[in-house]
This record gives sequence, C-alpha cells and structure tokens, in this order.
Amino acid sequence: MEFIELIKTPKHDNVVMIDSFGQKMEGTLCITSHHLIISSRNDQLNELFILHSMIDIVEKKANTTSSGGTIVLKCKNFRTLTFEIIGFIEFNNIASSIEWLSNLSDPRLLYPHFYNPEFNLVEDGWTAFQIESEFANLTNFSDEWRISTVNKNFDICPTYPESVIVPKSMSDENLIAIAQFRCLGRFPVLSYYHKSKKVILLRSGQPMVGSNSKRCKEDERLINTVLGAGRRGYIIETRTQNLAQLARNKGGGFELEMYYPLWKRVHKPIDRHSTLMDCLSKLVEVSNDTTLSMDKWLSKLDSSSWLSHIKDVLSSACLVAQCLDQEEVSVLVHGAEGMDSTLQVSSLSQVILNPDCRTVHGFEALIEREWLQAGHPFATRCKDSAYKQSNVRTREQSPIFLVFLDCVFQIYNQFSCSFEFNENFLILLFDNAYSSQFGTFLGNCVKERKEMNFAKKTVSLWSYVNRPEILKEYLNPLYEPNNSVLWPSVAPQSLELWKGMYCRWVTDSGPAKKALQKIKELISEEAELKAKAAKLRRSLALMISQEGTA
Amino acid sequence: MEFIELIKTPKHDNVVMIDSFGQKMEGTLCITSHHLIISSRNDQLNELFILHSMIDIVEKKANTTSSGGTIVLKCKNFRTLTFEIIGFIEFNNIASSIEWLSNLSDPRLLYPHFYNPEFNLVEDGWTAFQIESEFANLTNFSDEWRISTVNKNFDICPTYPESVIVPKSMSDENLIAIAQFRCLGRFPVLSYYHKSKKVILLRSGQPMVGSNSKRCKEDERLINTVLGAGRRGYIIETRTQNLAQLARNKGGGFELEMYYPLWKRVHKPIDRHSTLMDCLSKLVEVSNDTTLSMDKWLSKLDSSSWLSHIKDVLSSACLVAQCLDQEEVSVLVHGAEGMDSTLQVSSLSQVILNPDCRTVHGFEALIEREWLQAGHPFATRCKDSAYKQSNVRTREQSPIFLVFLDCVFQIYNQFSCSFEFNENFLILLFDNAYSSQFGTFLGNCVKERKEMNFAKKTVSLWSYVNRPEILKEYLNPLYEPNNSVLWPSVAPQSLELWKGMYCRWVTDSGPAKKALQKIKELISEEAELKAKAAKLRRSLALMISQEGTA
Repeated sequence: MEFIELIKTPKHDNVVMIDSFGQKMEGTLCITSHHLIISSRNDQLNELFILHSMIDIVEKKANTTSSGGTIVLKCKNFRTLTFEIIGFIEFNNIASSIEWLSNLSDPRLLYPHFYNPEFNLVEDGWTAFQIESEFANLTNFSDEWRISTVNKNFDICPTYPESVIVPKSMSDENLIAIAQFRCLGRFPVLSYYHKSKKVILLRSGQPMVGSNSKRCKEDERLINTVLGAGRRGYIIETRTQNLAQLARNKGGGFELEMYYPLWKRVHKPIDRHSTLMDCLSKLVEVSNDTTLSMDKWLSKLDSSSWLSHIKDVLSSACLVAQCLDQEEVSVLVHGAEGMDSTLQVSSLSQVILNPDCRTVHGFEALIEREWLQAGHPFATRCKDSAYKQSNVRTREQSPIFLVFLDCVFQIYNQFSCSFEFNENFLILLFDNAYSSQFGTFLGNCVKERKEMNFAKKTVSLWSYVNRPEILKEYLNPLYEPNNSVLWPSVAPQSLELWKGMYCRWVTDSGPAKKALQKIKELISEEAELKAKAAKLRRSLALMISQEGTA
Repeated sequence: MEFIELIKTPKHDNVVMIDSFGQKMEGTLCITSHHLIISSRNDQLNELFILHSMIDIVEKKANTTSSGGTIVLKCKNFRTLTFEIIGFIEFNNIASSIEWLSNLSDPRLLYPHFYNPEFNLVEDGWTAFQIESEFANLTNFSDEWRISTVNKNFDICPTYPESVIVPKSMSDENLIAIAQFRCLGRFPVLSYYHKSKKVILLRSGQPMVGSNSKRCKEDERLINTVLGAGRRGYIIETRTQNLAQLARNKGGGFELEMYYPLWKRVHKPIDRHSTLMDCLSKLVEVSNDTTLSMDKWLSKLDSSSWLSHIKDVLSSACLVAQCLDQEEVSVLVHGAEGMDSTLQVSSLSQVILNPDCRTVHGFEALIEREWLQAGHPFATRCKDSAYKQSNVRTREQSPIFLVFLDCVFQIYNQFSCSFEFNENFLILLFDNAYSSQFGTFLGNCVKERKEMNFAKKTVSLWSYVNRPEILKEYLNPLYEPNNSVLWPSVAPQSLELWKGMYCRWVTDSGPAKKALQKIKELISEEAELKAKAAKLRRSLALMISQEGTA
C-alpha cells in the first residue's frame, strides 16, 4: 500500500540530522509508506531507517530567520532525533506526513502487513508455541488437569485463547458459570505447575462480588478443590485493600473469606496505567538529559518513582515464588481484570522458579503463554510510549510489559550466568512490542489476531529471531544452565536503573560491547581449538594405525 | 609484643556473631595482640580473623535482662559485626580490650611490625619503584629534566622524597629559594611527561603570595620557562576562587597573573576533609541499610553528595587530560598544600592518558609516585573511616584516597577491557590503606617511613601482592592493552555507586563472582587447549619426519 496522498515531499536533500549525542549527519531524507530514511554519502553510505510507527511524537518548530524549520522526532524506544530542513513547504510537508504516518491505528495498515522477509522460515513462530505441548509436559507430573475448549470462538471470554488448562474436576458447564462470575469472563486457569512441590499458580480476573456479596458455587468449588486435601492457599491481590473494596461498588471485588475458607488473601498493590505512564515519562526525560548535575539526576530519578515500582513488582513475584516453593502452598493471583499486574506477577514468579523460562525458547513460550495468549492488550497499552503528553493519551496506555522486562533484567543482572539470553534480547522484545515489522505483538488478544488473520498475513518475531545467525546476537556467552530457584534481592542497593534500556541513546555502550565481544571471541576460539585438537588427534591415530599395518 | 595488661579475657566461649546479612555463627572468641578471632566447629572449622586496627568504632550495650551484653564492631572497610557475649565481666573486658587495641596510634605497635610473612620475597616492594627508572624512561623523550637531591635529609621539604625530577635549567639553589615560596616547601615538580604531545604536568603547593603580593623570581622563572618557547599553560586550581583569595590572608594564595603571564588559571574546586568525611559517613550509613524503601535510598544517596564529589574529581582530571592531550598545553595543578586534591587530579589524569598506569605494575608505580612519595598523609587521613562521630575525629581525617580509587573504578567500569587489574585490586588498596599487615601505607611521608625504618621492619604490600599466585585474584581476565587515551563520561547516567566497595557486606556478590570465574575458566581452558594442540602438532610432525627417513 502506498500513502501517496500523505507524502507530498517523498525526498529532500541537504537535511541535517542530529542524534542524542549531538552527532550531525547531513544527507537526503526519504519518506516511504512505512519508513523515514536518512542517507548520506560523505565517506561511505550511511543510512538510518526508522519505522514511522516507532515515532511517539513529532515536534516542529519553524525557523523565524530562514526558510524551513526543525523537526524533533521522539521515538517509542526513547531515542530523540532532530532534523533541520531547508524550505518552508518541504518542512511542513515532511512534518505532517510523519505525523500522519506515525499515527495509523488500523493494524492492517502497519508495516507487518507489507514486510517481505528475506529469509526462509525454518520454524514458523506462529505455530511454535502450542498449548498441547505445554499440556503434554504437565501430564508427566499431574493428571488432575485437562485442556478445555469451552472458549471455542471466544464465546465465554473474548480475551482468553480458545484452549486453556483447567482442573479435570470442572466441567465446561461449570466454567461457563464461573466465567459469568469473573471480570471479563476471565475464569481461573492454570498459569504454572510447580512440580518439585506439587503446587499450582492460578490467575484470573476479580470475582464480580459486588456490593451485595454475590457468590458462585462453581467458582468456590474450583478454587477450594484445586488445593488438594488438607492444603491451604494464598490469594495474592495486586490492588490495595481499599481499591479492592471500592471495586465492589462497581460490581467487582474479592473472594469473601467465608466462602473461600482455605485461602488467605494478601494485598501486594502494584501501580498501574496512568500512574505508571507518568513514572516512565519522568524517567525517560531525566535519562536523556546528560547535562544534569549529580544531585538533580538522583533527585529526579527518585521522583520518577520508576525503581520503586520495579521493586514492588519484583517483591510481589518473590512473594508468590516463596509461597509456592518455600511454604509449598498454591497461589491465585489477580487484580481487577487480570491482564496487567496479574501477568507481571505470574510470569515473573515463573522466571524465578522455573529454569526453562530462562532459556530463549522457554522465555518466548512464557511471553506467548502469559502475555500474548493471556490477553495482555499490547495494541492498547503500547500505542504510545513515554513522550505523549498526559492530556492527549488515553488512560489505557501503560508500560506494563516494560516493567516486566525491567524486572527480568534485574534478575538477569543479579544472576548473569543463569540466563541463556542477554539483555539485548529483552530490549528487542520491548522495541518490537511498540513498533515492529513482525505481527507478533499486533492486536490485543488471540481473538483479534485470529480475526485479522495475522498468522497468515504477517511474519512472527519468533520466526525471525530464532534463526541461529540472528539469535547469536542475543545469546549470553556466560550461560550455564542452573536448575535452582533464583532468589533476587529486592534491597534498593541491589536494584539498578536499566541503563541499557533507558540511557542507551545517550551513553556510549562501545566499551561494554567490547567486553561482551571479548567473551564471545574466547568461546569461539575455544570451540575452534577443540576442533583443531580433535582433528590432529585423528590424524595421529590414523598414522599410528597405518604404521601398525605397514 | 604482647599487650597482656590490655587483654583480661583472651578467650571466651559461646559467643554469637551476627554479620551484616543477619547470618549467625556461634563459637569461641579470642583476642590476641593484633587480632580478634572467632571460630566455630559446628560442621567444619569456621574462622574469622579481624585486625584490631581495622575496627573503626566499638559500640557496647549491656544486657538489662541477663548477664552480658552486645558489642557492635564497625570496621574501617564498612563491615559491621555484632557479638553477643554472656557474662558481664567478660563483656566489659572484651569491649575495653578491643577499644584499646583498635586505637593504638604508634605505628611501631601495629601489626606490620610483628607480621611474619610465610612466603619468600621474590621482589622487594620497598625497592621496586625507584625514581631512577622513571627518570631513565623520561630521558628517552626529553633531555630537559634532571634528578635533584636538593631535598637530601628532607631539608627543604619534609613531605617530599629525597630525589625529585625538576627542570634541568633550575639549580638546587633556585629550588631552595622556590621551596621557601611554596606551601610546606612543596616546590613544583614533574608529575607526568605526556610524550605524544611533549607537554608536562607539574604539581606543587600553593605559592605563599600573602596579602602583600609577595613574589619569587626563581619560581616565576621555573614556571614560565618550563613551557618552552611560545607556548602557554594552564594552572588548575583545586580551590574555589573565593577560598584561594581567602588563603592570601593566611600567607598563601595563587600565582598572580602579572608575574605568570603565560599561564591561565582555572578553578576546579574539589571538596575536602571534613565535608568529604561527612559525605562518606552518610553514604556508608545508607549503603548498609537494606531495609530502606527505594525512594528513601535514592534521596539519602543523593543527600550524601558522594557521587557529586566523584563527578567533580573526575571532571577535574578530565580537564587536565584535555589540556595536555587535546589543547597540547602544559598544566600545573595545586590547591593549598598540594597533597590531597592535587594528587587526586594529577594521578587520575595519568590513568586517563597513560596506558602504563592501567597495568598492575604501572598502577602500583603511580600509587608510589603520586601518593606515597608525594607525601599524601595516609596515617593521618586514614586514621578513622566512616563511623567515627564528627565530634571525636580531627579535621585532618578524610577519604581522599578512597575518592581517587572510586574515580579509577568509574573509568574501569566504563572501559572494562583496558585495565590489567580488576575491581578487587582497588578494594585491596583501600583496605590496606586503612588497616594492614604490611608497612606500605604506614606513616605520612617518606621521611617518617625512613626514620622508622619501615622498609627493614615491615613487609611491603607490593612484595605480597605481586606474587603470581596472589596476583591472579586481582587480574582482569578481559584485559586487552589499549594505548588510547580513555575519555570517561562524567554524565550522571555514566557514573555508578561503587557497590563492590560500599555495599559489599550487604549484597550477595556470589553470582557476579561466578561470572568472573566463568571467564577465567574459559581463558585457562583456552591456554590448555592451545598447549594440547601444539603438542599434538609436534607428535604429528615427528611421525611424518620419521616416516620420511624410514
């Protein structure tokens, strides 16, 4: 598709681009349907491609003295680029084209639908993570579960996938009844089976208890019987007691103790949506300003509250992991809708507990299972990033997924040998969740993705990244499989601002990359030497055997 | 020497020790002349030795309910240990013994005079760094310098060594005259010759200009002629303009422009002494408190001002390096006495400019030349560490050397492949500057060390650490010699709290150590494989040649 009518100046010469380091590049600016391209031919061809969808906001300032003006592009990955454009008409044309093209909301107009991969699909990421294989693995350890297709055609819960894992003891009719009692139909499903302790992690939406203390027998039966005889469980509620109570006025609420006597409710409140979005805006503003004094930097970092938030989420996940692994009791997590903070907690606790989730494939499976299939509304939450003014964004935009990735980074940072992937893999996921040539993060739930047929019309991020020549960039050379539970410290001394994420456009990562490169070289040299030694040994053996027969 | 009269309870059973992690250990506490030892025999022998001189303060609290009490030892390396002691008499005896023994000030009573090394001296650290070899190296590049022994017997400057490098054009008589004009007799000496640009770094004490604008012709001649024909220089003054001006009332001051017309004075003020000591106290208090909320942690870290201070010192060193390497002009650095902030700046700018200073031997030589020989008063500055209350310490105690090490850490952290040593080497130097079995950091200047004959009576830290079996712990496996100038970023985003130093007793460094270990293993495996391949290749070559002759 071409947006001819939106691109009045497709090409303009003598444009000066200034990056966050203050480095200048002069060249030709081209605007295509999906990309902004600047290329210079000073010494060698130097080109930068930016997806329009990566642009968060466009700031334009006409020159008062000469004809033309300055366009500042603030990107969703926190990069800032300034373009100086000569010619008033061109300046206006370019600015309005970018503004238009960066604000398309219909996913069918976005680049994933036009992207033509230059590689052969080895494994199709769209079909690589099936609930059946998860379930097959589960049946090795427990026979109390089944796959239900009660949600076929997304009839009872539009934000769930068509197949979910539920207790064998519950019939599909039971589930239909429960779905009516849970927020958005999000009935409790199995999130994780902690096999070493035979305990489970469930997640759901809030029960629609309301102010008149409505109850649902089927829900009570599911929740209470799932524990097993004589065992108790914890409900980890991601809202404050007060908020959970207030929710009752709007028909929501929490599990009333008298009807769920085996469960103890613990409130571990996690900030969400607009609060979190404001935190990120402040954080990104301060992270991009390299001229700050040290005390301004620290006080502004503090007042962004970002790290407090990271600490909260990580603490909640640690609590869930503790319940499962140390207290050996099952856990149900939910907040209101069960598609934001609930998923942060359920997925992070798996990173802590389950070594599989620290491999590339296992982490991708986790993202699929606990985020994409579980109905985290990526399209809505990640529509804008840090730069949009609070008055122009909707209340539904929020860096929930980024917080999760940041928490994974914190664990990775504390246990740097225990992850098969490196920090750049997390950054790749963040970037693609906000703007991508792949279809993986398009749409808000499985239903939307199916309706729009993304699996046929776009390429999966996993198809791209799992090819060995690409994946090698994202592998941690220090990885050593580690079957233990990882207990991250949540002391403030142990948590760090993720500079690779928030400061990546203003700090020189050259030396750090060099260190990583050095480690990689060591490993590949070692492999070569091993091969060489083996070859020599074979030649020697051959000669000896020939001597023997001569 | 035995301090029998000070140790009334040399041994006491059933003492419980609690470390900063809250880990308990029960065992026998022994007090010897120089050490406090706790050992338990639960599963295996578990022993901890602490030098009394490492203890900064002793806090005692008698039990009100049972007989005995609690002794908290706060160590100069920021460690905190709590001992629960049964028996009131023993509790009191032990507390007062430690208090006495940890406050001995005569260096002849300290452990270095009693320490008996269990290793053979390969190279004596006391004689390993001679000015003659520095000078021999210099003569390859410039013939304008000479070694002067004008300070023989420390006659003209008690805090300088007996031999210093000065311009050939200045006679010893000139130097005597200049010494009378400079604070504490600290006449300008060569600190570093930047050979690629043929410019020099000098350091000195402030000129004693006073309120009546005293001058010294010889001083002017030295400073002005040292530049070379037609060249200009910078004086980097480490005090504020105001402080430098106020110093004139007390006889001190700065180079008056009219008499030093080729020099431009730039003020790069660096905090010192009690201000700095307060910063460190606050920093250590907050670093040891793992119960803080994230915002309290950040706001307290901010209000300690420690990182601002690190940024200031690093910025000053960068400025000096820029003058020398980019503007290609010579620099003179001084503050008041020229033995604190002056040395921070002169030594750090060498770490930035001179790749030799980033090797183990070169860094040791730098510490010898720019700190020990240059008269930084280690005994006075490092008498107490972070815990002494401000009302009981003298104004002369200050973590000047720690700030230098922290700045080196910042450069190391940004260029982790460019240093032969690792972070632990810097921590080793810090620990030994405050409490040691070696004599290297005893005394305040060469004169004191010579008078007390430390070189004969104690072992040098360098003799210990330079043995390969010890040094391997302090080597950076990622080291790749790098001849470039390192330009560290001083943006607040690029500077980090040195957690390996300040938080080492409260954070688990296990995983980080494992990563380091992994890299080391890779390197040693690689070496083994190389040897194996070479051996195989030799066997093969031998067989081929034998076949040929057969």
